[in-house]
Amino acid sequence: MSTLRFDDRVVIVTGAGGGLGRTYAIEYAKRGAKVVVNDLGGDRHGTSASTSMADKVVQEIKAAGGQAVANYDSVEFGEKIVETAIKNFGRIDIVVNNAGILRDVSFGNMKDLDWDLIMKVHLKGAYSVTKAAWPYFRKQKYGRVIMTSSNSGLYGSFGQANYSAAKMALVGLAKTLSLEGQKYNIFSNALVPTAGSRLTETVMPEDLVQALKPEFVTPLVVYLTHESCTETGQIFEAGAGWYGTTQLYRGKGKVIPHATAEDLKANWSSIVDMNNARHYNAQELMGELVSALSEHGNSSSGNTGNTGGSKTHSSLESAPIFEEISKGLKENSTAAKNVKAIIMYILLKDGKEAAKFTLDLKNEPFSVYEGDVKNGQKANTTVTIEDSDFAELAAGKLNPQKAFMSGKLKVKGNIMLLQRLQGIMEAQKKAKL
Amino acid sequence: MSTLRFDDRVVIVTGAGGGLGRTYAIEYAKRGAKVVVNDLGGDRHGTSASTSMADKVVQEIKAAGGQAVANYDSVEFGEKIVETAIKNFGRIDIVVNNAGILRDVSFGNMKDLDWDLIMKVHLKGAYSVTKAAWPYFRKQKYGRVIMTSSNSGLYGSFGQANYSAAKMALVGLAKTLSLEGQKYNIFSNALVPTAGSRLTETVMPEDLVQALKPEFVTPLVVYLTHESCTETGQIFEAGAGWYGTTQLYRGKGKVIPHATAEDLKANWSSIVDMNNARHYNAQELMGELVSALSEHGNSSSGNTGNTGGSKTHSSLESAPIFEEISKGLKENSTAAKNVKAIIMYILLKDGKEAAKFTLDLKNEPFSVYEGDVKNGQKANTTVTIEDSDFAELAAGKLNPQKAFMSGKLKVKGNIMLLQRLQGIMEAQKKAKL
Repeated sequence: MSTLRFDDRVVIVTGAGGGLGRTYAIEYAKRGAKVVVNDLGGDRHGTSASTSMADKVVQEIKAAGGQAVANYDSVEFGEKIVETAIKNFGRIDIVVNNAGILRDVSFGNMKDLDWDLIMKVHLKGAYSVTKAAWPYFRKQKYGRVIMTSSNSGLYGSFGQANYSAAKMALVGLAKTLSLEGQKYNIFSNALVPTAGSRLTETVMPEDLVQALKPEFVTPLVVYLTHESCTETGQIFEAGAGWYGTTQLYRGKGKVIPHATAEDLKANWSSIVDMNNARHYNAQELMGELVSALSEHGNSSSGNTGNTGGSKTHSSLESAPIFEEISKGLKENSTAAKNVKAIIMYILLKDGKEAAKFTLDLKNEPFSVYEGDVKNGQKANTTVTIEDSDFAELAAGKLNPQKAFMSGKLKVKGNIMLLQRLQGIMEAQKKAKL
Repeated sequence: MSTLRFDDRVVIVTGAGGGLGRTYAIEYAKRGAKVVVNDLGGDRHGTSASTSMADKVVQEIKAAGGQAVANYDSVEFGEKIVETAIKNFGRIDIVVNNAGILRDVSFGNMKDLDWDLIMKVHLKGAYSVTKAAWPYFRKQKYGRVIMTSSNSGLYGSFGQANYSAAKMALVGLAKTLSLEGQKYNIFSNALVPTAGSRLTETVMPEDLVQALKPEFVTPLVVYLTHESCTETGQIFEAGAGWYGTTQLYRGKGKVIPHATAEDLKANWSSIVDMNNARHYNAQELMGELVSALSEHGNSSSGNTGNTGGSKTHSSLESAPIFEEISKGLKENSTAAKNVKAIIMYILLKDGKEAAKFTLDLKNEPFSVYEGDVKNGQKANTTVTIEDSDFAELAAGKLNPQKAFMSGKLKVKGNIMLLQRLQGIMEAQKKAKL
């Protein structure tokens, strides 16, 4: 396999004065990248600073014939760090958010400062540096982002309420950035490194210290941020020569119509059963939701399952669905304002286009009408489906996930919009402070 | 099954003026709890406030014969909300962190204010209210905490970089609090609700609106916080009558000694393979790490695998391991300071105690010595293992997870301490800002 080169790529590695960050910076430089070696030079509690750590790494890179420049800003000031990249190297391609501090203390004894400092450095810092690079990424249609998470976040960690929250937040951020960046070729992943430290050197045999070298994490960061790697929105783990991935698996759970707390208790073993659990991606989730609705409808009192099913109003089975939506919009259009998009439905009869309906939640007053999008505008999302399938879908008789997977339901354009619809749906009920 | 009652329990529900929070408050009151109905009365962007929303819910509860009191403080000021519980009802048993706002905007257009406000309300708010209740929970050895997360956090959500990060952070926080709270009977879980909203009422058929009622989430919150429920540190989901759980699954991955980025690329399908993936709990993780070390050692150049294996120094095969640790401590004890605990190893010969070794990382100067813990102190963690197994473990020949699972390796006392050892290990390399 040919060498993975980073010629003409510009990389920012935060917290690159030592440990993992240092090994990343050195490896990128070896592979032709121009590297911004960011390090405040603070100790691990974030209370002091000196420029020497970043300088040493830059010297090391230059001595080996590489290109690097030091930056000493706190990651809170991401724009300054990105400015260093732009001023010195003219562009920015890769951001490795690696800087961090620790303020370990039991939750009971935690001070607001312990919480706030961790959030500032790990979370706001990663936000800030990535945010400052984002416009460059979008413009050049290229970007790679690493968010450094931790098993302390994924599984919790005694004495690290602050750190575990921040590290888990970065997983959520990496996932959303992967969704928003996808069409600009901006990929974003979460890294879970396990590397040796002064502690392991103290209490572990030398063999183990050698096996836990930060150098064993480095190749994963390098590969994930290479132009040939298309992974995005995932969690990758490296440590001790082991490389793997972690995903959220959702159990099958159980549909219990009109459940009481007592019903849940009685059915608990089914609810928490993880046999046949699997990973869902963002698109599938909406399908699963409606799938649950469908089961729910089927197993409840029988007053569900008939919406849009009337075949008398039109030659199209699903025409009444759009009438209902239209009625709903007239009665209450407040919340639809968040969608800010036009969705077009192409209804097929035996595979041939039979009708189009446009759901305009972009231009007020919002409207639903038969036909193509009006006024020279474009649909943000186009859904293509057989008329009968759409009626079944709305009636809760067709599982939309299966419809999507089997090709019955086709989505063009901003497929994420459908996910966003759901995001807004579920979030709004929590919108009250 | 008998009714799940909450008599004499005091519950705080934040953001209880409407939506999900309101249904929780009403249901708890019906079941005998005394409820603090917290609501700032702000709109969903967090920009206005009025006391009427909380008041209305309190009136509704009282009219039905229940007990409730309103609180209008922002969740940032958790101590005031808890004070309302203590002043009015004398105790606090359950905190349901439900309050939230939205500031949806694409990452490129996100302002620092959008980020900061979401973090303040969702993350700092949940921290603050839970923190204020924590001393009461510990003292009474009873507490239940719900952190409201979201699929937007678990899977990312377009236009919600801030919200998804905050919602995922709460999963990490719930997990760490579950570890820290366990021995005080304080249980903490993350909730992922999907409920209808004004939007679904607008664009969805009435049947679906009915199926997505917040009331379908309520029984899960009630059961999870009941004294009979022992779940903690988990993620539970409810929506549309479906109830289930989500866990992190880790793939088997691949051990590649001294890997280059090119090696990872060449082995990528094995690294990301999720066949036989499974969930690990915090305790198991350490075993897995050392297991990887073991594979690593076995497949590398052969200079590993001999540590502690010398049988000439003592009748105990594992005695040299403690000598090495002792030497390490003398050379560098800085990092060991974070452990703040005493670990005792009971070494067996054919099932009978042959020797004890104490690793004191609590009292300075740190020490390793043969025998029981000195000076009337107690070990925080006691590890019991056959002498030969311990030697094999240290030599990388025995998989500690398997040893633990099969009962070869027994741990008493604070088993989380071992996890914490690992947490510190992996975190320290990221300790440079």
